[in-house]
Amino acid sequence: MSRGFSSQLLDNAVSQFAKLPGIGKKTALRLVLHLLREERGEVRDFVESIRAVREEIKYCRCCHNLSDTDTCEICSNPQRDHRTVCVVETVRDVMAVEGTQQYRGIYHVLGGVISPMDGIGPDDLNIDSLEQKVADKQVEEVILALSTTLEGDTTNYYIYKRIAPYGVKITTIARGVSVGDELEYADEVTLGRSIVNRVPFDTTI
Amino acid sequence: MSRGFSSQLLDNAVSQFAKLPGIGKKTALRLVLHLLREERGEVRDFVESIRAVREEIKYCRCCHNLSDTDTCEICSNPQRDHRTVCVVETVRDVMAVEGTQQYRGIYHVLGGVISPMDGIGPDDLNIDSLEQKVADKQVEEVILALSTTLEGDTTNYYIYKRIAPYGVKITTIARGVSVGDELEYADEVTLGRSIVNRVPFDTTI
Repeated sequence: MSRGFSSQLLDNAVSQFAKLPGIGKKTALRLVLHLLREERGEVRDFVESIRAVREEIKYCRCCHNLSDTDTCEICSNPQRDHRTVCVVETVRDVMAVEGTQQYRGIYHVLGGVISPMDGIGPDDLNIDSLEQKVADKQVEEVILALSTTLEGDTTNYYIYKRIAPYGVKITTIARGVSVGDELEYADEVTLGRSIVNRVPFDTTI
Repeated sequence: MSRGFSSQLLDNAVSQFAKLPGIGKKTALRLVLHLLREERGEVRDFVESIRAVREEIKYCRCCHNLSDTDTCEICSNPQRDHRTVCVVETVRDVMAVEGTQQYRGIYHVLGGVISPMDGIGPDDLNIDSLEQKVADKQVEEVILALSTTLEGDTTNYYIYKRIAPYGVKITTIARGVSVGDELEYADEVTLGRSIVNRVPFDTTI
């Protein structure tokens, strides 16, 4: 009887839950005891949804976003502007940009950023397929939307060097003071960037 | 495409995780994306452990504790004192008392307390089987270890009325100031109870 659990089955389930990020032993026990009080059918649905997402989900062959089909809903949507590609690190970033409802182009998910410290080089990312799209003249504009970290900037520069020779338009998302933020609390780099990249005053906003 | 997820499989798994207590949509998404990065074998182990605990775990026919077998490890252990029964609300309380390593008797898990507000009456709890144990003269002492709430006190009193006629010794766990706590911060009821139920000074502690 390990850790005072009277059941090996319980012990196993708690240990498995506790492997999840941010879930400790106490929370894991609470979750498992909750599932034991649920109907068996409910727990089967829970288990099946996890099995299904891990076994059946695909990565879009076009943009590498998570998808139920070979080509994701965004890439297969004729309403979207297929000549504008927004390059992001992860599928969470796709969700974040989609959440703004301001973007009608398609995406390209790199799967991370170049980070020698973590052993991630350009070959570990979906950069070849991005270059191929550009080389095939399918793309007019590539928007770089990576993190403003050392790794993000390195990756931006690497991608720029790879695709600039094809004569594609390359932009990055604007950096500046957040909407609703007060100037005096903005950091100098962000404030400086927002002044350098100032835009014409728009009376419609 | 609901909530900006490009995949129904992802959406399902996130919704299922978000049903767990204390897990919101954002945490659920983080957990599912974590599982997508894990090896398939790891995720199969996770899923199997939950399926197994829900489908295969039993409640001890003697004390109603969670168990892999018909009779739990505590009830089937001849080293334990089977003539002393500690009555608790839930299996978590069994774990808590076991964690103290101070108790060598057996348990009886009620499965809750009498709570008319929540529609829980005596018949919803494992009280008949407790009375049966006492009626069969298997038990010398019943220790009541329920919460000190209105519901806990009601349940204590109900059990007392049911089993007292059999002439069994009935005790409750001591209430008092926590070890390490300062007197001035203890609430009056607890401090009052600890004075009324004072015990002989023990030089061995």
